[in-house]
Amino acid sequence: MSDPRVINWNGDDYLTTMSHLRLVSSEDGIYFTEDTSFPVLFPEGRHESYGIEDCRVAFIEGKWYLTYTAVSSNGVAVGMRSTSDWKSFTNHGLILPPHNKDCALFEEKIGGKYLILHRPSSPEIGGNYIWIAESPDLLHWGGHQCLAKTRRGSWDSARIGAGCSPIRTPDGWLMIYHGADENNRYCLGAMLLDLKNPSKVLLRSVDPLFFPEMSYEKEGFFGNVVFSCGQLVDGDRITMYYGASDQYICRAELSLKDILDSLNN
Amino acid sequence: MSDPRVINWNGDDYLTTMSHLRLVSSEDGIYFTEDTSFPVLFPEGRHESYGIEDCRVAFIEGKWYLTYTAVSSNGVAVGMRSTSDWKSFTNHGLILPPHNKDCALFEEKIGGKYLILHRPSSPEIGGNYIWIAESPDLLHWGGHQCLAKTRRGSWDSARIGAGCSPIRTPDGWLMIYHGADENNRYCLGAMLLDLKNPSKVLLRSVDPLFFPEMSYEKEGFFGNVVFSCGQLVDGDRITMYYGASDQYICRAELSLKDILDSLNN
Repeated sequence: MSDPRVINWNGDDYLTTMSHLRLVSSEDGIYFTEDTSFPVLFPEGRHESYGIEDCRVAFIEGKWYLTYTAVSSNGVAVGMRSTSDWKSFTNHGLILPPHNKDCALFEEKIGGKYLILHRPSSPEIGGNYIWIAESPDLLHWGGHQCLAKTRRGSWDSARIGAGCSPIRTPDGWLMIYHGADENNRYCLGAMLLDLKNPSKVLLRSVDPLFFPEMSYEKEGFFGNVVFSCGQLVDGDRITMYYGASDQYICRAELSLKDILDSLNN
Repeated sequence: MSDPRVINWNGDDYLTTMSHLRLVSSEDGIYFTEDTSFPVLFPEGRHESYGIEDCRVAFIEGKWYLTYTAVSSNGVAVGMRSTSDWKSFTNHGLILPPHNKDCALFEEKIGGKYLILHRPSSPEIGGNYIWIAESPDLLHWGGHQCLAKTRRGSWDSARIGAGCSPIRTPDGWLMIYHGADENNRYCLGAMLLDLKNPSKVLLRSVDPLFFPEMSYEKEGFFGNVVFSCGQLVDGDRITMYYGASDQYICRAELSLKDILDSLNN
């Protein structure tokens, strides 16, 4: 969740923490322990030297693909690693160049291509919008299209980014996404994407589905933030894991039908 | 050369000019005429609605590939079209997402992959650096690596970007690039990239090879700019075409040997 905390970006870079990834496991989805027989994933190489964070995991054709934000003095980009056993990992390098974050893979091919959601940012013209791209092999990406923009005056006016892999429903691909406003208040909403052509947004939350309301969501290292990178789907039930205030990891249960109903109203 | 001139980026967008591409031809490389039997290339679709500009052309396996800056309210990205006859063109869409410019293809495969130079920009951490990426098919790109950065206190301190396709020499790939300083003075320099592994910079100009000195290079629509997107190579002679002050198209002759000598000194 957290950005690497750099005291001095422009002089000699000095990090007080180093973002990295750890695998924790649970029998019930509530109490988690760390199994130390699984390796900790540390930053590797010159494109990850300030840390790796905000990892999404997609399960595709028998392998897990981890897409994450890779931060270094070269910029903020999207790295990818894959594994079939969580013991050994292949590092695929940067699949998207700076400035990019919030990268989530679709878990199946559509129209013969792999698809990805990502969030490039622009220093001028453009903004912090969600884009979609396609690939023949998960490693090389093209056919980039802007999928959805921020909305002026709304809860998602300053930046938006995909959560984890979209959920296939009979009505379309359901994507949970985060949106922030000018005050850096992060909420969660949803979009429904066309089943055959996911570059088409069918429906989008007018109001947030989920917003900071508990004390731990409102106050912390970076307060007023709910931000999700992972979920479990079991029939109608979505168990969503989310970061609160860049300090806590929380769990919420949502109904798929309720979300779809909220989009239709 | 020119950016689209937008009076009001944030309100109702209003362009006073629309960048587009025209083919001109010449018998001697000095006097050019426009053959109107060739089509004018206009922006197409929602990712090019503010114009297309700064086109580089690479000749690969019997086809010309045009990589150019595609500007729209979605951002500034890299579009690509290809042609085998300059009469009909295939539009490949955006091959790189925002914010990206200055995209030049290598004209042959290296290590079984196509390679590209590009210039993403970052709103925070990172900068306006030259990157390199690889592709199996010219359409989808991955394995992004930062190739070269701006240099503090130098003529190329604020932003750098590749010119056109690198030139194969026995010593390495010679790339002519532009660099700008904090005062937006644009000069041209060179880098020599490793022949087998072009992600490795062997040599780089300490001083610019070419800088604004003539009146038409110092004064114009956007003064103090020399900027090249095209060149002809004939033995030792490089005929470089370049924009001056975002207003004129100029021509200069350089010696390949002189450039290599300047890099070695």
